[in-house]
Amino acid sequence: MAQQKKMVEDITSMEEDFSKWYTDIVKKAELMDYSSVKGCMVIEPYGYAIWENIQKDLDARFKKVGVQNVYMPMFIPESLLQREKDHVDGFAPEVAWVTQGGEEKLSERLCVRPTSEVLFCEHYQKVIRSYRDLPKIYNQWCSVVRWEKTTRPFLRSSEFLWQEGHTMHETAEEAQQETLTMLRVYEDFYKNTLAIPAVVGQKTEKEKFAGALATYTIEPMMHNGVALQGGTSHYFGDGFAKSFGITFTGRDNTLQSPFQTSWGVSTRMIGAIIMVHGDDNGLVLPPKIAPIQVVIVPVAQHKEGVLEKAGELYHSLQEKFRIKLDDSENSPGWKFAQYEMQGVPLRLEIGPKDIEKNQCVLVRRDNREKQFVSLDNLEEAIEKALDEIHDALYQRALDNLTSKTFTAKNYDEFLDIAANKPGFIKAMWCGDSACEEKIKEDTGGVKSRCIPFEEEHLSDVCACCGKPAKHMVYWGRQY
Amino acid sequence: MAQQKKMVEDITSMEEDFSKWYTDIVKKAELMDYSSVKGCMVIEPYGYAIWENIQKDLDARFKKVGVQNVYMPMFIPESLLQREKDHVDGFAPEVAWVTQGGEEKLSERLCVRPTSEVLFCEHYQKVIRSYRDLPKIYNQWCSVVRWEKTTRPFLRSSEFLWQEGHTMHETAEEAQQETLTMLRVYEDFYKNTLAIPAVVGQKTEKEKFAGALATYTIEPMMHNGVALQGGTSHYFGDGFAKSFGITFTGRDNTLQSPFQTSWGVSTRMIGAIIMVHGDDNGLVLPPKIAPIQVVIVPVAQHKEGVLEKAGELYHSLQEKFRIKLDDSENSPGWKFAQYEMQGVPLRLEIGPKDIEKNQCVLVRRDNREKQFVSLDNLEEAIEKALDEIHDALYQRALDNLTSKTFTAKNYDEFLDIAANKPGFIKAMWCGDSACEEKIKEDTGGVKSRCIPFEEEHLSDVCACCGKPAKHMVYWGRQY
Repeated sequence: MAQQKKMVEDITSMEEDFSKWYTDIVKKAELMDYSSVKGCMVIEPYGYAIWENIQKDLDARFKKVGVQNVYMPMFIPESLLQREKDHVDGFAPEVAWVTQGGEEKLSERLCVRPTSEVLFCEHYQKVIRSYRDLPKIYNQWCSVVRWEKTTRPFLRSSEFLWQEGHTMHETAEEAQQETLTMLRVYEDFYKNTLAIPAVVGQKTEKEKFAGALATYTIEPMMHNGVALQGGTSHYFGDGFAKSFGITFTGRDNTLQSPFQTSWGVSTRMIGAIIMVHGDDNGLVLPPKIAPIQVVIVPVAQHKEGVLEKAGELYHSLQEKFRIKLDDSENSPGWKFAQYEMQGVPLRLEIGPKDIEKNQCVLVRRDNREKQFVSLDNLEEAIEKALDEIHDALYQRALDNLTSKTFTAKNYDEFLDIAANKPGFIKAMWCGDSACEEKIKEDTGGVKSRCIPFEEEHLSDVCACCGKPAKHMVYWGRQY
Repeated sequence: MAQQKKMVEDITSMEEDFSKWYTDIVKKAELMDYSSVKGCMVIEPYGYAIWENIQKDLDARFKKVGVQNVYMPMFIPESLLQREKDHVDGFAPEVAWVTQGGEEKLSERLCVRPTSEVLFCEHYQKVIRSYRDLPKIYNQWCSVVRWEKTTRPFLRSSEFLWQEGHTMHETAEEAQQETLTMLRVYEDFYKNTLAIPAVVGQKTEKEKFAGALATYTIEPMMHNGVALQGGTSHYFGDGFAKSFGITFTGRDNTLQSPFQTSWGVSTRMIGAIIMVHGDDNGLVLPPKIAPIQVVIVPVAQHKEGVLEKAGELYHSLQEKFRIKLDDSENSPGWKFAQYEMQGVPLRLEIGPKDIEKNQCVLVRRDNREKQFVSLDNLEEAIEKALDEIHDALYQRALDNLTSKTFTAKNYDEFLDIAANKPGFIKAMWCGDSACEEKIKEDTGGVKSRCIPFEEEHLSDVCACCGKPAKHMVYWGRQY
């Protein structure tokens, strides 16, 4: 068979070359393909199905906290982008410019949105009049473009898919609350849907978003100890509102400026799933977003009754689970390897002997544990197994994060860990971005991840400069 | 209240000025807003919720016929667009060109996709090897850009949202079958989800898609007799496949070219919904895609027990229907007008006297029929009413289409109808595009809509030139 050519032994081991292991998986699990457009990718059906499951779960969470979806234009006139100074400084160097429409040269360049704060502001300026029009809690699912020099599938590409929420509120307190509410939505989603633990906290001044007063972040750790910025939530105060002339009549009949937030997560999450849960046999998908939760592999399928029974199980389970029956002529061994590569959480094997005993075999993807299950309790057994897989994936990832988090009390310790132990470093910090610069330079790339909400008191002084410490910071390398 | 300022009497009547009536509705029902980007629009929450319901329904239909979703880059390098000659000739005049990325001028211009045939072909060229890799039935939901000179909300905009399916098949027959299968999916969706009847058939050579061998179309008629091209499905033969060097090893071990289709519908459908079902009180939404199917309006809500009962009904019905309880301080009269404007199919009124009698009032949006319903059978009564509304909307639209379809046996009749009776004209045609040109010119814009699958024999000769007739054609003006 044509498909049999793609053999599993082609994967690089993650210990040998993590980066090549990653690229092997995205290609061999058929998540994406490269295109002739520099830095842009084709998301193939299996990869896109993961994204659809992510969207569905997250969108339901959004709607529960009052989010409404909208769609904004994909273009931003140059003059509109320039309305907020910090913002344009942050994004202008990395945007794509449209200069020609049809046969005519445009009188003003349009950039393809790298993010849509300014478009939402322009709209809000028109529709917000009174405190009764607030809050506005809008979100859009779309693609954005940031002209990247070096790209990696899902992690950094010139175009990527994401959601971007943009909200306006009557008071600063309410907007700050919204910023944290959405961060908590992300944290809960990472934990309970993606089975990914993370360090959560506030970005330093140096690392915050262009134009924001405060940026909060969720930072999961990949299997190799490297961080991925997994999602951010920004508080803008009334800076953009003032730049865009957005005002409303308040409860006291005075003209006021509303307070703003934005928050987003992207297809980078697919990169996080791969690098947090994957192993040397391929992808390992958390059950809640797996396009196929259970694959049925008939054993000795030419024997009488096997395919029939497998089909019966398929039909009885398909309402409840995302399930696939592979009755192709490929060998069971090939199928086992193929669905391990694709990270299907649970394999259900059924052969003549099983049928005789009114049972089947369930094999977990994460630890290859086998169990024989009576066909009478199959639905509950699958449900239980999927829950256990979720929990085991989370626990394994948490153990990885915990065991690769180190404490540095002084700069020698810091440099030693940075040089020899991949992972996060907890260390005190004086609050000066000069120390962040120095650390980045001395370590070849370690940056502050965040100031966690619950800081530990590790010492009185900055691990870098020795001056009085203001915060405990998580540090690490990042994708 | 601020909101009370938006009064319903501001709508232009459709008889007076259909075009202004349309624009009034899209603005006053808060479906969209204009933006500073020429020809691009903001789709507001209520409009976007309609699109989400359309997507959900249609996507489930797609998945039932084996469609898989993917995502392709939004940019097309100029050389890739030029690979198929007819295609580039058709689209190059109306695309937006990116010429600069970040700080650097691009060595090759990129167009923002007007449609993605060439990107799918590039991908298929890499992944199709054997007949076992076929068919490929991919679709994407995305936005596309066509630089339009004159634009109208939802009907014609420089950027719009759509889905585009692109498929590859082993044989011409299978591809032709797919083209028709997807057309039938659209037809069924229009009828059973949007409550919109349509004329369905094949486009003439002159009107077909750039690069296609055959284009099929679904053409609903708006209330004013004007057509809207509601969706198209194209058969490409192996033309693109050959231009892109896509080959596969067939069952007989020879190298062959696959056969291709594409098909799409867009946010224009929202325009169709407005213009087919709307009336002088505003939008009228078919129940299956209405963001709010039932609005509960408490009457005398300050009286004891009213809001409590209304809340109870809301909670008992919200699992089953998309429902809203408006317990704001606006008057019932204001609320009635507001939800009529927004086209909510069913209004549920409940006041003190109703509560005494264990009943409520249901009022249909389409015909304002009132019925008193016992609270004991409320769920079934609502379900029945929504079904009846759907059927009544369909029937009313069908009556409009039927009564505004005229037959022309000769050119005098044709010109008379075209000048005096808005609607479709059925007339025989010789097959020559010169007659299409002449008709368009003589009538100021009447074009062939399609050759229907079931042609009637109206006469032996072309209504325009008098030469022997080849087909019966539907003609009409279009948005």
